[in-house]
Amino acid sequence: MNTPISFLSDFGHDDEFVGVVHGVIARIAPTVRVIDVTHGIGRGDIHGGAMSLTRAVQFMPDGVFLAVVDPGVGTDRLAIAARTPVGYFVGPDNGLLAPAVAMVGGADLIVSLEDERFQLPRQGSTFHGRDIFGPVAAVLASGQAEIDDLGPAVNPDAITPLLIPLAEPAGRGTIKGSVLWIDTYGNIQINIGPEDLEALGLKKGDDVLVGAAMHEFRIVWGESYGSVEEGEPVIHVDSHGQIALGVRGGSAREDFDETAGDPIVLGRPDGGNRINLEIVPS
Amino acid sequence: MNTPISFLSDFGHDDEFVGVVHGVIARIAPTVRVIDVTHGIGRGDIHGGAMSLTRAVQFMPDGVFLAVVDPGVGTDRLAIAARTPVGYFVGPDNGLLAPAVAMVGGADLIVSLEDERFQLPRQGSTFHGRDIFGPVAAVLASGQAEIDDLGPAVNPDAITPLLIPLAEPAGRGTIKGSVLWIDTYGNIQINIGPEDLEALGLKKGDDVLVGAAMHEFRIVWGESYGSVEEGEPVIHVDSHGQIALGVRGGSAREDFDETAGDPIVLGRPDGGNRINLEIVPS
Amino acid sequence: MNTPISFLSDFGHDDEFVGVVHGVIARIAPTVRVIDVTHGIGRGDIHGGAMSLTRAVQFMPDGVFLAVVDPGVGTDRLAIAARTPVGYFVGPDNGLLAPAVAMVGGADLIVSLEDERFQLPRQGSTFHGRDIFGPVAAVLASGQAEIDDLGPAVNPDAITPLLIPLAEPAGRGTIKGSVLWIDTYGNIQINIGPEDLEALGLKKGDDVLVGAAMHEFRIVWGESYGSVEEGEPVIHVDSHGQIALGVRGGSAREDFDETAGDPIVLGRPDGGNRINLEIVPS
Repeated sequence: MNTPISFLSDFGHDDEFVGVVHGVIARIAPTVRVIDVTHGIGRGDIHGGAMSLTRAVQFMPDGVFLAVVDPGVGTDRLAIAARTPVGYFVGPDNGLLAPAVAMVGGADLIVSLEDERFQLPRQGSTFHGRDIFGPVAAVLASGQAEIDDLGPAVNPDAITPLLIPLAEPAGRGTIKGSVLWIDTYGNIQINIGPEDLEALGLKKGDDVLVGAAMHEFRIVWGESYGSVEEGEPVIHVDSHGQIALGVRGGSAREDFDETAGDPIVLGRPDGGNRINLEIVPS
Repeated sequence: MNTPISFLSDFGHDDEFVGVVHGVIARIAPTVRVIDVTHGIGRGDIHGGAMSLTRAVQFMPDGVFLAVVDPGVGTDRLAIAARTPVGYFVGPDNGLLAPAVAMVGGADLIVSLEDERFQLPRQGSTFHGRDIFGPVAAVLASGQAEIDDLGPAVNPDAITPLLIPLAEPAGRGTIKGSVLWIDTYGNIQINIGPEDLEALGLKKGDDVLVGAAMHEFRIVWGESYGSVEEGEPVIHVDSHGQIALGVRGGSAREDFDETAGDPIVLGRPDGGNRINLEIVPS
Repeated sequence: MNTPISFLSDFGHDDEFVGVVHGVIARIAPTVRVIDVTHGIGRGDIHGGAMSLTRAVQFMPDGVFLAVVDPGVGTDRLAIAARTPVGYFVGPDNGLLAPAVAMVGGADLIVSLEDERFQLPRQGSTFHGRDIFGPVAAVLASGQAEIDDLGPAVNPDAITPLLIPLAEPAGRGTIKGSVLWIDTYGNIQINIGPEDLEALGLKKGDDVLVGAAMHEFRIVWGESYGSVEEGEPVIHVDSHGQIALGVRGGSAREDFDETAGDPIVLGRPDGGNRINLEIVPS
């Protein structure tokens, strides 16, 4: 009984890395389907990979989640597989998997991938996606092994966590958060939810103070892009339920000059001023 | 009985958008195959997406054509499904679908995708590929719903058209067209067919006047790149039957400095001059 | 009885070229699986495509290998299919296929793809991936034709070879090689094996002289990135068994300013000097 593999990495599409992992899986488990979540994660960007996996996981079919963003390959970080209510997560234990595993309900078993029976013989030690993670995903997805065949159990609570910044009250009717993600269209997703704005007394249709990159703006909280004119900015609840800043027919990234991780302040238009922003070099 | 889904978008490969739509489809219809036509359409470039879909559609298997280039998401544009002789087209009604639908013989039924039974519950309103179009494509491809279950019929003639520039005679043995497409190799496809050149008295082997970007050139109408030396330009009938300007072992985009939409004049070498080009800022 | 098709090209993902070839294959052979090796080969870079195919082939399932990097499309280069111990290779006869074919044990039959029964009718002559190679791969993978149905046999020894640079002794305990490949992480793969370094009297743990781009460096030969500190360079055996130059958490491409094809000298730290490098303009 096969399950699909959802595959995310920072391999990009310039080289054959993604294709080779598909090939390795197809040799081991010819009828298993592999769905590419994305391979466009910034090289070595564990945080970006973890956020992408967390956003995607609820939309992917149950099965195996193979995630490889692994700047520590060849160091002593563990290679792990984790059993969760939606299936298995396979990848390096560097924080990449933790938020998605937590989101789907946590892991009741985590093993360290040390049994070489389920791995490719290695010529070097720098392509674990091909030599360890891909083969392990293939045997789990095809039922050729149980997770506890793959190596010794480790403490499921000891999975390396990822520090995710939290928003916090910033006084005078404002809340200070940070930029979680900027998508390919230039939309700026913020680690602030609509309930946070409501707690400040704001509601849809109100103007919101946005303090970003040393500037303050008044931007309407609309339903979506249709709430404003072409070229105008809008605060809205994005497709993941987070507050986001977009520009109809344009790019908020370009207009507001933000980068993932940058601080940002939202609040009542009568609140805030630049002092709250405490710009730190990124 | 499953049919494949051919999927085109401007989502790019930097984020997980494409993967999430694949995931949503796999959850609804696990055995349906999804073929990625391309996700490299310029962000929000409806015209480029429509041209790409139109070039591709005749080569894809019958089934469902899922196309999402949707700068108006969150405005009042309709979300539609159209029934045609080769299957269903699903996407925003913004001109993206019209040329391909026309090319395959037109639609005899178009519905507005308003029945939320066949959509994902939405947290926001900006990712209709995931929440509306993907799910609808999945139920159509797997036969879980008929098109008229998906929402009310709209007038099939009212599908939003796309303005496609036509070539026109420009006097003195010339014809004025425009650049339809520049591919990744730098080949410049023009909205002029070989029959147009023949009507001017030109035939394969002749030199052709090419007026582009304020300059005029004499370029041979060859069979293909093999008709000229390395580094030399050639006018030829491209793989879609259109007249195209290429450079053997090089890039016509770089040598001729053209952009999609730019005007271009073709004609007999004794015809034309720069006056015909009427350069307009693009 | 279907076999999978492993598909490599320089088509990129900006246009619908890859999708159209998938579509053509799906129309001819609806149940054949196509695995994308990569489509990120540099435009027209036969050498880069041949190296990528050669690195990948041992990890892909037996079946059909469809490879299209074809700057000579429309000239008189042959279109071929080659029968090998791991399946069929299909593509232009321009050197792209030769190293991979040799690596898997050579071809016992090569045919020139001249029988138009197994090709698409052509409007132009510049997209042989769609019109010739894709259809031929589909019929071979699905068993709809035998290889000798596809066209006349040609001399299997006459397949166009690819010149692959070899490393050579450079005196005073050094060996002069060249850069084979720089991957997306900036790792520099060199056409020198660990046995070559050992023949110079070097062993893991030693410092190695690296003469590159007019400079000389002393860099440790480590197990992997874990052998050095963050930001430090390391010589190691890469995932293909070749000597490679990497930087932990960084990019050797940026730090050492190398390009594929550049000369590079490795040796004992007491050997070499810049004279060995004989920089040639690339």
